Amino acid sequence: MKLVEEEIVKNGTVLSDGVLKVDAFLNHQIDPKLMEQIGKEFAERFKNDKITKIITIESSGIAPAVFAGLYLNVPVVFARKSKSLTMKDELLISEVYSFTKQTTSTIAISKKYITNDDRVLLIDDFLANGQAAKGLIDLCQQAGSEVVGVGIVIEKSFQDGRKLLEDHHFRVESLARIASLENGTVTFVKEEECAS
Amino acid sequence: MKLVEEEIVKNGTVLSDGVLKVDAFLNHQIDPKLMEQIGKEFAERFKNDKITKIITIESSGIAPAVFAGLYLNVPVVFARKSKSLTMKDELLISEVYSFTKQTTSTIAISKKYITNDDRVLLIDDFLANGQAAKGLIDLCQQAGSEVVGVGIVIEKSFQDGRKLLEDHHFRVESLARIASLENGTVTFVKEEECAS
Repeated sequence: MKLVEEEIVKNGTVLSDGVLKVDAFLNHQIDPKLMEQIGKEFAERFKNDKITKIITIESSGIAPAVFAGLYLNVPVVFARKSKSLTMKDELLISEVYSFTKQTTSTIAISKKYITNDDRVLLIDDFLANGQAAKGLIDLCQQAGSEVVGVGIVIEKSFQDGRKLLEDHHFRVESLARIASLENGTVTFVKEEECAS
Repeated sequence: MKLVEEEIVKNGTVLSDGVLKVDAFLNHQIDPKLMEQIGKEFAERFKNDKITKIITIESSGIAPAVFAGLYLNVPVVFARKSKSLTMKDELLISEVYSFTKQTTSTIAISKKYITNDDRVLLIDDFLANGQAAKGLIDLCQQAGSEVVGVGIVIEKSFQDGRKLLEDHHFRVESLARIASLENGTVTFVKEEECAS
């Protein structure tokens, strides 16, 4: 999506070969008009897939997810990251490993809000190693729901997330795909390389 | 706002005299169409106040805040709750005490995204004792920005939050004001009592 790429070039900051800071418009300060366009784009890409629910993860997934939910006309549920969980019997629980922080965190969704009838679209701000997506997929599968696809705002294509998801036959739609952050420069995956 | 009151009656659950569960549409599962209407309502109430920025707090404030930001045409910044903060010199930091959990948590906003030119609208899902709002106001005041008002989706009017804010001359706009949750029943503040 041209708009997201342009925003990254204009307002993103390359902190290192692996880290792109986008707190100007996505995960700290949020540009609502951009989120609206992002939501429309996700809705367009998944409009024929009979999505019944969007699942995301707090906090940075929420803004793109609610706009996708608005245009697909479905509820959004955000998984909570939590250390101490109460009422565990009402929750679906999974774990997410962070390669960056080298820590494992627990994520949870109430059993009430995801069922075996649901056709789920996962939305998240970033796809890097795919661990958050993997945790969300685990929650959906525990509920017996079908994960129809994964919608990502920014994919770091030089990391393993897309491969991990595609190896398990999940459809991944990323609005911006970053081939490299080397030398302080953002290089996007070229269109013709996006066929997968 | 009639729509929010109706949603509370229909899909809220009174857990105790002090606790209303609204995870069906606001703070776990999110109803995007309701959030859109909530955003429009906040925008309508503050349209003449030259708001330049909306500040909220993760996670449940984000959805109503981004829609308010969309219709007021201003950026949204969400304060992060954090235990371990890095890069402290780039952050404004405050503390929020939770009467429920009896814990203090740290909240932070990057100095980059709030300035002394900003006219700020604070948005949050709940107003109870006003401690979260107080923390957000502290962050804004550290930045030298002006807090023009506080927009709340659900106010527990039997707790002290509104009084605390009004005593400090902040304008509070709550879309639903709950007078009582006693006997498992939601009673709203009557219109004529809302003059304050």
